[in-house]
Amino acid sequence: MHKLLITGAAGGLGRMLRENLAGIYPELRLSDIAPLDPAGEGEETVTCDLGDYDAVMDLVSGCDGIVHLGGISMENSFEAILNANLRGTYHIFEAARRHGRPRILFASSNHTIGFHERTERLDGESPYRPDSLYGLSKCYGELVARYYYDKFGVESLSVRIGSCFPEPRDRRMLATWLSGNDFCRMIEVAFAAPKLGCTMLYGASANKEQWWDNGHAAFLGWTPEETAEVYRDRVEAATPTPDPNDPAVIFQGGAFAAAGHFEDE
Amino acid sequence: MHKLLITGAAGGLGRMLRENLAGIYPELRLSDIAPLDPAGEGEETVTCDLGDYDAVMDLVSGCDGIVHLGGISMENSFEAILNANLRGTYHIFEAARRHGRPRILFASSNHTIGFHERTERLDGESPYRPDSLYGLSKCYGELVARYYYDKFGVESLSVRIGSCFPEPRDRRMLATWLSGNDFCRMIEVAFAAPKLGCTMLYGASANKEQWWDNGHAAFLGWTPEETAEVYRDRVEAATPTPDPNDPAVIFQGGAFAAAGHFEDE
Amino acid sequence: MHKLLITGAAGGLGRMLRENLAGIYPELRLSDIAPLDPAGEGEETVTCDLGDYDAVMDLVSGCDGIVHLGGISMENSFEAILNANLRGTYHIFEAARRHGRPRILFASSNHTIGFHERTERLDGESPYRPDSLYGLSKCYGELVARYYYDKFGVESLSVRIGSCFPEPRDRRMLATWLSGNDFCRMIEVAFAAPKLGCTMLYGASANKEQWWDNGHAAFLGWTPEETAEVYRDRVEAATPTPDPNDPAVIFQGGAFAAAGHFEDE
Amino acid sequence: MHKLLITGAAGGLGRMLRENLAGIYPELRLSDIAPLDPAGEGEETVTCDLGDYDAVMDLVSGCDGIVHLGGISMENSFEAILNANLRGTYHIFEAARRHGRPRILFASSNHTIGFHERTERLDGESPYRPDSLYGLSKCYGELVARYYYDKFGVESLSVRIGSCFPEPRDRRMLATWLSGNDFCRMIEVAFAAPKLGCTMLYGASANKEQWWDNGHAAFLGWTPEETAEVYRDRVEAATPTPDPNDPAVIFQGGAFAAAGHFEDE
Amino acid sequence: MHKLLITGAAGGLGRMLRENLAGIYPELRLSDIAPLDPAGEGEETVTCDLGDYDAVMDLVSGCDGIVHLGGISMENSFEAILNANLRGTYHIFEAARRHGRPRILFASSNHTIGFHERTERLDGESPYRPDSLYGLSKCYGELVARYYYDKFGVESLSVRIGSCFPEPRDRRMLATWLSGNDFCRMIEVAFAAPKLGCTMLYGASANKEQWWDNGHAAFLGWTPEETAEVYRDRVEAATPTPDPNDPAVIFQGGAFAAAGHFEDE
Amino acid sequence: MHKLLITGAAGGLGRMLRENLAGIYPELRLSDIAPLDPAGEGEETVTCDLGDYDAVMDLVSGCDGIVHLGGISMENSFEAILNANLRGTYHIFEAARRHGRPRILFASSNHTIGFHERTERLDGESPYRPDSLYGLSKCYGELVARYYYDKFGVESLSVRIGSCFPEPRDRRMLATWLSGNDFCRMIEVAFAAPKLGCTMLYGASANKEQWWDNGHAAFLGWTPEETAEVYRDRVEAATPTPDPNDPAVIFQGGAFAAAGHFEDE
Repeated sequence: MHKLLITGAAGGLGRMLRENLAGIYPELRLSDIAPLDPAGEGEETVTCDLGDYDAVMDLVSGCDGIVHLGGISMENSFEAILNANLRGTYHIFEAARRHGRPRILFASSNHTIGFHERTERLDGESPYRPDSLYGLSKCYGELVARYYYDKFGVESLSVRIGSCFPEPRDRRMLATWLSGNDFCRMIEVAFAAPKLGCTMLYGASANKEQWWDNGHAAFLGWTPEETAEVYRDRVEAATPTPDPNDPAVIFQGGAFAAAGHFEDE
Repeated sequence: MHKLLITGAAGGLGRMLRENLAGIYPELRLSDIAPLDPAGEGEETVTCDLGDYDAVMDLVSGCDGIVHLGGISMENSFEAILNANLRGTYHIFEAARRHGRPRILFASSNHTIGFHERTERLDGESPYRPDSLYGLSKCYGELVARYYYDKFGVESLSVRIGSCFPEPRDRRMLATWLSGNDFCRMIEVAFAAPKLGCTMLYGASANKEQWWDNGHAAFLGWTPEETAEVYRDRVEAATPTPDPNDPAVIFQGGAFAAAGHFEDE
Repeated sequence: MHKLLITGAAGGLGRMLRENLAGIYPELRLSDIAPLDPAGEGEETVTCDLGDYDAVMDLVSGCDGIVHLGGISMENSFEAILNANLRGTYHIFEAARRHGRPRILFASSNHTIGFHERTERLDGESPYRPDSLYGLSKCYGELVARYYYDKFGVESLSVRIGSCFPEPRDRRMLATWLSGNDFCRMIEVAFAAPKLGCTMLYGASANKEQWWDNGHAAFLGWTPEETAEVYRDRVEAATPTPDPNDPAVIFQGGAFAAAGHFEDE
Repeated sequence: MHKLLITGAAGGLGRMLRENLAGIYPELRLSDIAPLDPAGEGEETVTCDLGDYDAVMDLVSGCDGIVHLGGISMENSFEAILNANLRGTYHIFEAARRHGRPRILFASSNHTIGFHERTERLDGESPYRPDSLYGLSKCYGELVARYYYDKFGVESLSVRIGSCFPEPRDRRMLATWLSGNDFCRMIEVAFAAPKLGCTMLYGASANKEQWWDNGHAAFLGWTPEETAEVYRDRVEAATPTPDPNDPAVIFQGGAFAAAGHFEDE
Repeated sequence: MHKLLITGAAGGLGRMLRENLAGIYPELRLSDIAPLDPAGEGEETVTCDLGDYDAVMDLVSGCDGIVHLGGISMENSFEAILNANLRGTYHIFEAARRHGRPRILFASSNHTIGFHERTERLDGESPYRPDSLYGLSKCYGELVARYYYDKFGVESLSVRIGSCFPEPRDRRMLATWLSGNDFCRMIEVAFAAPKLGCTMLYGASANKEQWWDNGHAAFLGWTPEETAEVYRDRVEAATPTPDPNDPAVIFQGGAFAAAGHFEDE
Repeated sequence: MHKLLITGAAGGLGRMLRENLAGIYPELRLSDIAPLDPAGEGEETVTCDLGDYDAVMDLVSGCDGIVHLGGISMENSFEAILNANLRGTYHIFEAARRHGRPRILFASSNHTIGFHERTERLDGESPYRPDSLYGLSKCYGELVARYYYDKFGVESLSVRIGSCFPEPRDRRMLATWLSGNDFCRMIEVAFAAPKLGCTMLYGASANKEQWWDNGHAAFLGWTPEETAEVYRDRVEAATPTPDPNDPAVIFQGGAFAAAGHFEDE
């Protein structure tokens, strides 16, 4: 693979990937609606609203692979999410169909299944239980991926990212944390696999507390190598004892599941 | 239940329901973006664009139940479907949340699962396999229903309607046909059930060819009473012998699954 | 089969069976701790506390089949249930082991699974969810049956009786009602089957609302022939509209699941 | 379909089909290694050893559909079964591949799953449990069908025939009986289906005792209409009470499962 | 957690836990019907018959967590097990309900599923197959736990202990052995988990031979660290070659499954 | 175990096992239809056509265990495979039945399931999908094993060998490779297990890419210790980038699934 497009490259995840994938793929095309750091060697930067059909067609043209992080990554108003996430993800897949069908790694989210209780073990057949308008938009994105594979052969990996931060910030993340290194290895694996198909992976590191089973995608050979456990003492010291009857503790989606409706009116 | 709202009341299904449900519920509020026949006794008519937030809030206010047929009911451009189906369905559920949580019967579609082969038997746990942008919008609608039940307790029945026409029009409909009477009985059952929860039903009559299993929802007590079989001879005489290697024959979605991308640019 | 033992023969179910099975099996031995009507032709009556080991050994001796209805059939104190249901059922199976291993039809209960929601469809693999101390005792009885079959070859049918009354008394019974005739046919089938093994049947008539699936036991050939539907209008007229958020409506166990702890101290 | 080949046409099943399918398909080609009644109008007769490659190629050439009953239909020596059933069935499918891929209805057998206990309910996913060398050969035939579909697109229906006789001959057949009329309707359905794929059906009539679930193939629309129940009294009067500990009663394969090794040396 | 109650503290397991948990929880309340070693610092000792309702209410009052090992831990007469295990476990859960709902770790047993064959792999959905009156009592205890969670919110972990001894004593224990350290870590995990719910864990160390799959409870983050494998040579040298047709080898319950009825009369 | 028979001992796998198992079992009886190296100490060599009934009876007599590698190990004509693999494997099991029922390790193949896509995860319940006449013969062999266990108690392990070569030869083998050491350990485990039953194992080392799940046979305690990953760089450098739309890449069976019919006429 020569040229990799990363959408949402100005965000936290995007900046991390920009740094880490630089040595792996010869050229990175970096896009965001927000300002990006100036392009270095082997880099292009593009300001792009994912809700703009023509802009996205141009953005994707000439790329050999796409890491689609772009859009809104937390709860927001329906209209904001509709534009960035529903329309945006559709545009990305449609552009891939029209421009040589590069593989797509789609940053989905644990909030697609956030209304499952954390005492449940989920796998590749667990039903959707979105916990937010944001989670709903990620369900839609995964289904767009399914549709574009079934009808047009666009291969993709949808990653239901747990919590991808430098380190776990609360007790829930002791289960959901995905280290940057583990995420980067996953990306490499997805683009190197002989066959990717239309696959979903839960994105968590080798944490002791495990809510998700990736057995269905073992053909990829991705296994996380880092663990949130090394942060346990620090996290537990800094956060209060959880209440097992708190919806944010009962449900996998945490605070997203416990929150009410996003009030934008 | 006193007042029932029917959206999409000017369409074929809507007109059929308007006629058949008149004697069952004291008041019908009928809405469409297209012109409606003048209101009769026990009827109100409302012209409403489902993509208009305020209009939908008003539309739902005061209703005790909703049959949501509105939106686009076949393949179309992404933007057209986005407005009528994604935004429209969200508005209906959000309005229900804000106005006393009436039960909603959501007209979903077999095109949510149209990329399953017709030699497969689907049930309540079968994964989505949308066959079109239209099918994708109905997946989204079902997931909106799930979200509004899990978080806000809005009860709903999503009906994956097969083919609801006066009679089967082609050989595929010998399996997918849903008679108007069977659909009306399903609506009555949904609004009368002691508990509806968030349930999905496949909408087909008691046809001999059966692709779908409603066992998971047997608690509702809905069983179809009519069958497409009585139309078999006429349909077979009028249509050519199917080719088992034709995608429209292989996949449950029929022509939707076999079609290419909707060209709107 | 020559001589059939019916325990709990003085109760409502027992009296119904006494009358209906008289013509089918040459001799009935009828037992209860409560007074029984005088023995007629082809009948023996025995007063027996099922908690009395020696008495139960005598009771079972000489019988070719057992319908075990005895014990407490509603919520009660732990100690009362312990004696009549835990000890009593153990005594019956142990007596069968020692006296020629007659087949046993064990009157279990839907309260073994009463904490499943009524929107769930249960089958032969659904886990126990007892809703009461009474339900717990019936789980125990089913497991005694399993143990005596696995280790000693005592064949039995555990029937999770829904509501076996002359007619449905409330809306829930529109789903759970088991007619007396259907129950009698089930008993005949159980004793006539070439092989009974250790089988469980849900005991409901051919009601339109169905929570339970007996497919796993189709080898028995029992199919109910009566339906609660004929009583629907009368029942609905006599009972208030159910509240879908009432635990007695949410859970299959109805009032048993909604009740607090039985207060006997 | 114009010309239908029936192999094994001199046997009991074959003669029944010859008579009943005559009015349905314009031409029948009838083959057997044993003598056949002279060809009538619309009939051809061919003497053919299914173990003879060239003969089978000729036999299949020009046919539009095949009902493959030929071979040995009960336990026999390994070598006899090897020639007639393993080699014979392979020849039939290979000939179909080479001659226009007519659909094949393959007469498989309940002895492919005869070591399941009769208290089990089998469906389309139940594993093979052959009870005899004969049963093994039918497993092989079903897998040949699978292979020729996956690789070459030859469509087929494998029917695990229970007991297809004019009427049930013993108590086991009260569960396994398949009436001739029900079998004929199944054949019609298989050749008329828009898509047949590679499907398996259990072949039993609408008997009260049911060991097998054809839900997975409901897309075919085949439902049996006759029942062994009408013969129950006569069968029970003529046969002794079964012993539930007899292997022939425990296992679905009956006497096949209970028998020792076929002694041919 | 401040004060932990350990019932059955005078037994082998109890003494091991008393020693190992001393440094972890500030106060231990130790109870048994048998004599206990004198209380040390941070310890209370209580002589208590678990069959005595009032005594158990007092015993539980003031505790923040319970490890319930008490009762009879091998086959015995029905009456002995009834008192200690059925009545005793009920009393513990009822006391927890009445006294602030401390979490309970219930020492269940592999004998709840001992009639599964050892060539089967069990998981969180495997049905009960008790192999003894003792095993039956542990099934009952697990169901009491389920009931008290569903109705009253008492959280618990039921541990189906394999063989918790200082080292494996026979070949079967090469698969079933649970090291004391692994058990202690499990207890810590159970009381520290943000949400425990009503969970079941199989209690075996990281032995090479594995009959049980704890995947369903991976959310707890318990993974055993010790293995019976280090004892293999010694065990195999000291014990005879097993006979694969011996019921004690066929069934997971070993000698419990192979034994006849406990004769106490 | 004293004397182990290895069939197919002149082939690549056979020679490897001959060398590695020499120190483990006191006596090896080595057979092949091809010439074998002269017998060393503790060895016997026998030239044997597995299609010769009498010869196989003699071959097996006196052996305490069998590793059955013999037959054709790649695609060939139906007749060649019929003799060596269908007839040959039947002869081995029949000989075992007649000569004391030694355990059999049967070298089955991944080509029994080669038409599953490599993005699927298979386990002990996955259906057969043979990709070749060779694969069909191995399905048959596994079913012979099942039959001889169910009816005659002959224990066996069927190993669906991936690719057992000194090192991986192409990219597919990075997933399917089974090291010789891992295979030898598996053999030891199979003959040492207290109970073997009739078990199937997928034969792959601890490769990162995993298509198969052996969880169902964890009771054996076999875990691979080597991995193809150490050969990845060399393999990837020596082989072209795979095309995800190539049938040899789509299906697990690789080139076997992609090949047409073996042309031998």
